[in-house]
Amino acid sequence: MNLPVMQARLGAETVARVLSRVAELRPRVHCLTNTVAQNVTANMLLAFGAIPSMASHPDEVAAVAAGAGAILINLGTISPEGERAIPKLLEVARQHRKPLVLDPVFVELSPLRMRLAEEILSLPGIVVRGNAAEMAVLAPLLATAPSAIRVTTGRVDLIEAPSGRLEIAHGHPLMAKVTGLGCASSALIAACCAVEPDPLLAAGVALTAYGLAGEIAAERCHGPGSFAMHLVDALANLDEATLRARMG
Amino acid sequence: MNLPVMQARLGAETVARVLSRVAELRPRVHCLTNTVAQNVTANMLLAFGAIPSMASHPDEVAAVAAGAGAILINLGTISPEGERAIPKLLEVARQHRKPLVLDPVFVELSPLRMRLAEEILSLPGIVVRGNAAEMAVLAPLLATAPSAIRVTTGRVDLIEAPSGRLEIAHGHPLMAKVTGLGCASSALIAACCAVEPDPLLAAGVALTAYGLAGEIAAERCHGPGSFAMHLVDALANLDEATLRARMG
Amino acid sequence: MNLPVMQARLGAETVARVLSRVAELRPRVHCLTNTVAQNVTANMLLAFGAIPSMASHPDEVAAVAAGAGAILINLGTISPEGERAIPKLLEVARQHRKPLVLDPVFVELSPLRMRLAEEILSLPGIVVRGNAAEMAVLAPLLATAPSAIRVTTGRVDLIEAPSGRLEIAHGHPLMAKVTGLGCASSALIAACCAVEPDPLLAAGVALTAYGLAGEIAAERCHGPGSFAMHLVDALANLDEATLRARMG
Repeated sequence: MNLPVMQARLGAETVARVLSRVAELRPRVHCLTNTVAQNVTANMLLAFGAIPSMASHPDEVAAVAAGAGAILINLGTISPEGERAIPKLLEVARQHRKPLVLDPVFVELSPLRMRLAEEILSLPGIVVRGNAAEMAVLAPLLATAPSAIRVTTGRVDLIEAPSGRLEIAHGHPLMAKVTGLGCASSALIAACCAVEPDPLLAAGVALTAYGLAGEIAAERCHGPGSFAMHLVDALANLDEATLRARMG
Repeated sequence: MNLPVMQARLGAETVARVLSRVAELRPRVHCLTNTVAQNVTANMLLAFGAIPSMASHPDEVAAVAAGAGAILINLGTISPEGERAIPKLLEVARQHRKPLVLDPVFVELSPLRMRLAEEILSLPGIVVRGNAAEMAVLAPLLATAPSAIRVTTGRVDLIEAPSGRLEIAHGHPLMAKVTGLGCASSALIAACCAVEPDPLLAAGVALTAYGLAGEIAAERCHGPGSFAMHLVDALANLDEATLRARMG
Repeated sequence: MNLPVMQARLGAETVARVLSRVAELRPRVHCLTNTVAQNVTANMLLAFGAIPSMASHPDEVAAVAAGAGAILINLGTISPEGERAIPKLLEVARQHRKPLVLDPVFVELSPLRMRLAEEILSLPGIVVRGNAAEMAVLAPLLATAPSAIRVTTGRVDLIEAPSGRLEIAHGHPLMAKVTGLGCASSALIAACCAVEPDPLLAAGVALTAYGLAGEIAAERCHGPGSFAMHLVDALANLDEATLRARMG
């Protein structure tokens, strides 16, 4: 395993610093996300100290997103209405220089999602968070988007930005047994991007906190049902002492 | 703090009486509500003894709502389709004189929602349930709707009707850390309105029961994830003995 | 009570055999399902060892469903977009001979859903899973669809196929107090149909496993909120030893 370039920056203090800024500033993350994951995404954002908003109606999405600290576009269960909302969200992100995170759910199964991903990646500085299969099919597109930040989550999460790369080795296999937990991680990255200008660091902090909460939840649960509940509790209760104890 | 005008009516017996009528009559509440809160809203209604239904397709919404005991319109994640369903639900409410509760989620962020709220408030006797920010932005509109019942929830819930006002000082701050719990409270108010003709009393009973369940859940939980689960359990298990013990 | 014709086939070993095939093959179930039940449906499928996918956009639904092992169409909260997706899913099922399960939620309340059910039942070999009220209103339609498999769930589940009938007497009344649990059972039937060619047996296994998990969850819970969590855990942990112990 390559040693992560930025590992030194992701000590418990750094993670705690970004998390406390989220808790203090309470950024709103505007989520155009799939209807399966909306509820768990909103609850993870709240547990994190952020505020979710979720309009997708083309007649209001720009107004609602305009005041948000970051935008998430998740392509799962994309609707014709959501499709029409995407250019409006891109315009809001461009005009207000808001961080934008793309979650290309199942992009390998749908030419429509591939086309939408391409449209979104025309904006510079997009953070893309997907699993290995999703990121593999996006690779040619990402090769033409040099300013994009690529976040490939799995057993070890890999974050690749123009400024460096990071590996995060936290989390638990149960995170793949509950629907929407990957989608929620993209929202947490967006929340950190709203308060931390370096997207590499923001993504690293979000995935470290989420992964640690997952490890704690796995110790307390009896299956994926109770895991989901304990994950929300652990994320809400994550403090610097816990970070120090678990990050070694 | 002003003493609530109707506090005497909201003893444990009154609350128990309305709750037992919900459990006995099992009113169906037709919910046009946001996709984030649909699941938790349905589960709270079921825990309360009511029945949720959730059609929004313009070609069926009137037929499905026609047999319901009350209607809820929640403006969160309103879709173009949901927008077209609103006049149909207003017509059902008007024709069958059904109670209608409006939940103006994030109305302060969206001119579209403001316009829809105005359309809905053209019907007399609407119950509007929102937080302080939402109710503040609706104030000018509500001033032109003298028959509306205004329910402002927060640390202390305030219910203002033409016939009087009520304050409910139950609940717990964790209720603001789980998505959809405010939305669900509006559905519980609708369920009580389906069995209790006085909307002031109906809203007071719903918020008292919900607030007490929240207090019980807060004693048992370890964070917002477990709080949500305990809240459903506590609401389902709320009986007159618990009401008496907790309402003093 | 009639003795189930096929009871002998549904010993613990048979159930375990089909469940282990689901766990091994990890079939993807493409779900066009209502937005209230999407999350719990996905989580039950994952707990079962299957993979959920949920596209409904007419421009991608056929592509996403094409690689699935089975298709579920649930009529709850059907949208105009979902309505347009139905013929595309029927075509995928027809062309690839994929098992298709229909869940006619609240069909008794909506002429639109009745019309859609009729359209779906034009395909031979559909499995229809509903409660007594839904199945009663569909009875005339089903009489013209002799190859359909009728699954009527309730205190005792009844499965009627051209090849025989089965009764499953597992489960718990709390399963009717949590939204989406009936919808999720239809998805589990679809998952079993993806790996077991006999739909009578597939439905019997899914409902036996689900019912047993419900019995286990009921022993551990304190109300419908905790029941839902324990149900997911029990389903994920169901093994042959538990099946043997509980099926007697």
